[in-house]
Amino acid sequence: MLAFMTTKIRLFVDHPLGAAQSVELTREQAHYLFAVMRQPVGASVSLFNSRDGQWQAEIVEAGKRKGILLCKKQTKALQMPPDLWFMFAPIKKSRTDFIVEKAAEMGAARILPIQTEFTNSERVRRDRLQTHAIEAAEQCGGTFVPQVDEMRSLESLLSEWPSDRHLMFCDEEKVGQASSLAGFPKGPWAILIGPEGGFSKNERQKLNGLSFARSIALGPRILRADTAAVAALSLWQTHLGDWS
Amino acid sequence: MLAFMTTKIRLFVDHPLGAAQSVELTREQAHYLFAVMRQPVGASVSLFNSRDGQWQAEIVEAGKRKGILLCKKQTKALQMPPDLWFMFAPIKKSRTDFIVEKAAEMGAARILPIQTEFTNSERVRRDRLQTHAIEAAEQCGGTFVPQVDEMRSLESLLSEWPSDRHLMFCDEEKVGQASSLAGFPKGPWAILIGPEGGFSKNERQKLNGLSFARSIALGPRILRADTAAVAALSLWQTHLGDWS
Repeated sequence: MLAFMTTKIRLFVDHPLGAAQSVELTREQAHYLFAVMRQPVGASVSLFNSRDGQWQAEIVEAGKRKGILLCKKQTKALQMPPDLWFMFAPIKKSRTDFIVEKAAEMGAARILPIQTEFTNSERVRRDRLQTHAIEAAEQCGGTFVPQVDEMRSLESLLSEWPSDRHLMFCDEEKVGQASSLAGFPKGPWAILIGPEGGFSKNERQKLNGLSFARSIALGPRILRADTAAVAALSLWQTHLGDWS
Repeated sequence: MLAFMTTKIRLFVDHPLGAAQSVELTREQAHYLFAVMRQPVGASVSLFNSRDGQWQAEIVEAGKRKGILLCKKQTKALQMPPDLWFMFAPIKKSRTDFIVEKAAEMGAARILPIQTEFTNSERVRRDRLQTHAIEAAEQCGGTFVPQVDEMRSLESLLSEWPSDRHLMFCDEEKVGQASSLAGFPKGPWAILIGPEGGFSKNERQKLNGLSFARSIALGPRILRADTAAVAALSLWQTHLGDWS
């Protein structure tokens, strides 16, 4: 009965967690736990909800479409990511999924799909991307799941930009220049990754003219958008985030 | 006739390139250029071979299974990556493909699949991985394709380690510590990314005892192997490679 000895299964639940708190599962979670993972009553599962850290919980009721877990003890404190927005222009489906997964893994606090002039996809399924962010946190031991926003246009987002938030964007025309974040101030930030075709001339002019925006280069080779996403997040986390 | 005006198609060829050099295509390349991309005689294609930079070439013969191109002029000088080996333990197929693609994009000079104690795949198809590295270079404007080695064991590789090459490995037990490359010397390096289950206790002990090896942490969250690959390459390139 390996299931009794390990607590490898981690589930994100949208439910308060605390001592002796009982947690009702959704239909999908019950299916996953009992039909897919074949967990019996009495088995342990780790739960987190982006608010109360990670809790070890015991299965007390297991049904086909429902189930109840009972929180036993907190096994990890809540670990909030830095105040970092991750903005990106959706590309092909599998790479968009990948970008969301990576942003969640790398510690973005909020994920914002952005419509730019050269963005091909006119809409994204927010709920599907949110599911990817949840799965990434479940896999990677995180206690926080970044919210995925509905897609909106870069223009409208910039027009309501919060005055205290800095913006770092990856400028393809800087290819070959040093990729330095030296002198970038601490505080709330957003990273913006453009679409495969890059930013339009208008967009680049606009971005370069914003007082809160800084551009960076990412080496002498052209990077795909998903690569640029992980690279930019790595550099930001090391210089300004919780990797330093 | 858009094809005459753009030279968006880039092909890696294992053939010398130079002024007035004619280049015979392989069967696969001919199929791609003429059947898939529908390029006519007279159209321009960019060629590179990891040695002679990028050349604009004109299609002079187009057949079903063969074709000949004629080099016109060099359009990009050869850009060698830094002397960086990228070593990784293959994981699931799609993520292994992804890691190879990213290592090529990020500027590794050589890619070495490594068998560790916790590596699940016993073998990888070297030719398939090499194709991914070529496609990444074709897509990303590179003029160099890293060689993908046959898989070998970490132990055997370490037993013949070149005396002048440093080794950076990502230590999961350092999760939460600062990810700093400060003090890492310049010179030939290798990056080693472990498998999903991490390194074994023996391997970690051995790695930590090597005079040429340095460990780094990659933030407070556990990263998947493919994420760790891009993150480690970003940090190395910024500090010691050609991003600085």
